[in-house]
Amino acid sequence: MDLVQEKCVPCRGGEPALRPEQIKEYLAEAPEWALVKRDGVDTLERTFRFRDFAGALAFTAMVGAEAEAEGHHPSLLTEWGRVKVTWWTHKIKGLHRNDFIMAARTNRLFAEASAAVP
Amino acid sequence: MDLVQEKCVPCRGGEPALRPEQIKEYLAEAPEWALVKRDGVDTLERTFRFRDFAGALAFTAMVGAEAEAEGHHPSLLTEWGRVKVTWWTHKIKGLHRNDFIMAARTNRLFAEASAAVP
Repeated sequence: MDLVQEKCVPCRGGEPALRPEQIKEYLAEAPEWALVKRDGVDTLERTFRFRDFAGALAFTAMVGAEAEAEGHHPSLLTEWGRVKVTWWTHKIKGLHRNDFIMAARTNRLFAEASAAVP
Repeated sequence: MDLVQEKCVPCRGGEPALRPEQIKEYLAEAPEWALVKRDGVDTLERTFRFRDFAGALAFTAMVGAEAEAEGHHPSLLTEWGRVKVTWWTHKIKGLHRNDFIMAARTNRLFAEASAAVP
């Protein structure tokens, strides 16, 4: 799977969330991401580190722009030196293949971010 | 008090946090903000609403730029249609007059934000 190259497909409310065995398979390809339940909903979560506040804020802007371009929106917690990114699919109250695509793209943006602390 | 006109003064670790009666007095001037304890630390918190994700992201950038200019940094949670802003002073593990100055400035930025939902 090379998720980073894929586009999100429109996700209608009727589509089911990924099944646990599918999630496990995708997670194996995205080991930096944690599966976290928030209010009963499966989400993907990763905290990225930066040298300072400005670096964190710049990364938030990068991820936000990518999200807008795909019409798929995360939760972004920006603090001094770090950004916590959370992906999930509101309409299906769970994880969709799209979320793993966006997680892979977020990793790629981090690799390009200038103030990143790997 | 017209806090929005004031600059933050450098806050050294030795300065004490505001006392409860001082916090009460400042909060009366900032009724939109809630006093919330996070990990035992008093913080100021307000959620701002926007028409869409882009509006929320733009506000995050505005507040982040103001924070950088003052060297005083909040926590910014950006989601579709809303931004939760949290101010506190790390060095004193509590609230400083600076936090109320930044809260007043955040209110002013919201009044200027184009996609704001008042």
